[in-house]
Amino acid sequence: MSIITLTTDYGLKDHFVGSLKGKILSENPEVQIIDISHDIDPFNTAEASYIIGAAYLSFPKGTVHLIGVDIERNKENQHIAMQWNDHYFICADNGILSMLTQKIVPQKIVAINIHDRFPIEATDLDIFIQVASHLSRGGLLNVIGKEISSIKEATELQALVADDGNSIKGNIIYIDHFGNVVTNISKKQFLEISRGRPYEIVMSPKSIKTILPNYSAIATSDKYPIKTYEGEKLAIFNEAGFLEIAIFRSNPSKVGSANSLLGLNYRDVITIKFS
Amino acid sequence: MSIITLTTDYGLKDHFVGSLKGKILSENPEVQIIDISHDIDPFNTAEASYIIGAAYLSFPKGTVHLIGVDIERNKENQHIAMQWNDHYFICADNGILSMLTQKIVPQKIVAINIHDRFPIEATDLDIFIQVASHLSRGGLLNVIGKEISSIKEATELQALVADDGNSIKGNIIYIDHFGNVVTNISKKQFLEISRGRPYEIVMSPKSIKTILPNYSAIATSDKYPIKTYEGEKLAIFNEAGFLEIAIFRSNPSKVGSANSLLGLNYRDVITIKFS
Amino acid sequence: MSIITLTTDYGLKDHFVGSLKGKILSENPEVQIIDISHDIDPFNTAEASYIIGAAYLSFPKGTVHLIGVDIERNKENQHIAMQWNDHYFICADNGILSMLTQKIVPQKIVAINIHDRFPIEATDLDIFIQVASHLSRGGLLNVIGKEISSIKEATELQALVADDGNSIKGNIIYIDHFGNVVTNISKKQFLEISRGRPYEIVMSPKSIKTILPNYSAIATSDKYPIKTYEGEKLAIFNEAGFLEIAIFRSNPSKVGSANSLLGLNYRDVITIKFS
Repeated sequence: MSIITLTTDYGLKDHFVGSLKGKILSENPEVQIIDISHDIDPFNTAEASYIIGAAYLSFPKGTVHLIGVDIERNKENQHIAMQWNDHYFICADNGILSMLTQKIVPQKIVAINIHDRFPIEATDLDIFIQVASHLSRGGLLNVIGKEISSIKEATELQALVADDGNSIKGNIIYIDHFGNVVTNISKKQFLEISRGRPYEIVMSPKSIKTILPNYSAIATSDKYPIKTYEGEKLAIFNEAGFLEIAIFRSNPSKVGSANSLLGLNYRDVITIKFS
Repeated sequence: MSIITLTTDYGLKDHFVGSLKGKILSENPEVQIIDISHDIDPFNTAEASYIIGAAYLSFPKGTVHLIGVDIERNKENQHIAMQWNDHYFICADNGILSMLTQKIVPQKIVAINIHDRFPIEATDLDIFIQVASHLSRGGLLNVIGKEISSIKEATELQALVADDGNSIKGNIIYIDHFGNVVTNISKKQFLEISRGRPYEIVMSPKSIKTILPNYSAIATSDKYPIKTYEGEKLAIFNEAGFLEIAIFRSNPSKVGSANSLLGLNYRDVITIKFS
Repeated sequence: MSIITLTTDYGLKDHFVGSLKGKILSENPEVQIIDISHDIDPFNTAEASYIIGAAYLSFPKGTVHLIGVDIERNKENQHIAMQWNDHYFICADNGILSMLTQKIVPQKIVAINIHDRFPIEATDLDIFIQVASHLSRGGLLNVIGKEISSIKEATELQALVADDGNSIKGNIIYIDHFGNVVTNISKKQFLEISRGRPYEIVMSPKSIKTILPNYSAIATSDKYPIKTYEGEKLAIFNEAGFLEIAIFRSNPSKVGSANSLLGLNYRDVITIKFS
């Protein structure tokens, strides 16, 4: 049974996600549909990029990932489908795939060109559904598009290494359900630049000097119950491989979160200084 | 594999939706369950009516739609099941199906009469689950109810044409995830009355003179990037076929929405004047 | 087809739930995954306990229930799997199962001991996924853990009977989507203690003298429409078998709820006095 995942900014109140699933099942009754998120901040391609990049590897190879964020086709946005790391991605060419392709070169990208086969009232999403169903049945990319060699880059999604190699300057690209803030500084980049040097994570006016292997590692002493450490700030590389600033056992509506307690917000700068 | 869709006001925090699915799968392990929405405003049958009307046609024929809004059986509310356009609907007779049956006459309606076969502690939802499972296995309506010829109408859901035929007066019946407001004026009704005349959409104190074919059509000039048009108001007929007032690329928590920027709210009057 | 249910505090915005499903389907493509809730208040094991206790019986025997709340393994929290009432539960031993085991003795409990078989970067959730997949394929508990005889109790989840047997003192343990508040006083406990005596439910400064069989029973007269009773307070035993204080047809954002109108909050004391 093949899988189609959905990542959209449609929310769960409206009928859009239900209708989308109904249309997919009308095309391919055998496919399994899995929600990744429908609560992407509206039109926020950076968030969508982070979420799909963090999630896709959890799925079996051959999975088709439909990304419904900012998909209306216009003079700036063409529709694309990409094979990458043996997964398939369908989206508008709005920079949304650049977090993925930072790491590995795509196997194949096509500009979708089947729009003329549809009646005039077909929506952009109808095109995506058709492409997703086609790919989920094992169909080829060349049947639904023309091969292209590059896609738009969203440079804001990349952390920068200083010329002297002594610091990495990143940004907060995502605030999660627990209020933990995620930066665009990856573990891979950190390890390449750090070469074992001491470091300090600077986020005005606070700083952190240790990146923990997991949340519970904040309990440095066995003398006290784990509960003692609730509300303390910490840094880890999260399961998606990115630097995250968190509050131990945070709860946005009670003890507070990195977002609320440390005043960290979307796009804020986080720097790692090596010494 | 047959499909049962769910439209409720149960929300997703509680265990109700999970329990509902567990009970359905206990009755029919082969059925596929698809959520349409569980965030219907509590007891708001108008919202539920709009949502199920907008979604159902996306599903294959034979799909069973269970509507769990205001279902407690009492002296005013009997339980009904309706076959309509080759789909099945199960709900309380509280006006919730009147948006659908404005358009086409039902194939068959029954008043569900199997309550006596259940133990006293069975809930209204247990009855619905039994009926949905029965229908999803291809069972007949006559087995679970007695045929009736009419259901309650919710007149508030219908837009009115002025006696002189020069205007249509509708209401806002739904505010979506993006803050766009949806009226009960359908494209079909508009085309019947307009007969090509110029028109103005009046919503005090603003008005709109053009209904766009899609959101991006707001970009009337190729000289400026699409981004220039963010935050502008527009009118379209949405994919459900109803007049919608929107803000281009709206985001309720950032640029604002038709709901917040134009001050449009649930039940507000929207009039189209022809000249 | 076997079923795995999910109860977590991960929320639906992030990719965590999607990733979790992807990993489960990678291990067992044939399993059916059903969400119970992902909106458990973060790290609130009492809420999780109530929700899973209320939901699990709706599922077929043999269902595997994965509970992802406060699962990081540390000196206080070991990972356990429990067979109980022919269902399987996987969670951390943090008191979360004590609401269930108040009622019936478990069939078997094991402390999960397969952590050493995993690479160092495996998360606690990866272990749960492996155990859930194993059990969903019909695997035995003994293969993944060492049998233990007891688990942690969360005493806060139990209502207390006064020494003279004339009152039951409980607490609010859950506030639902409609703002109705649920106590830890069960119908079973009430019936045992009441022995038909008159009673009064005391919740400062209000009280209620009748527990209704269902919400609509608030309409004590046929003379008035049901709508007349909207906004009135009532008490029922909910479908999970616990005493619930509700507002008839409550809507937290409109008429208000038991939570907002009566000022009832999480952990507040509710007493039933018999006379």
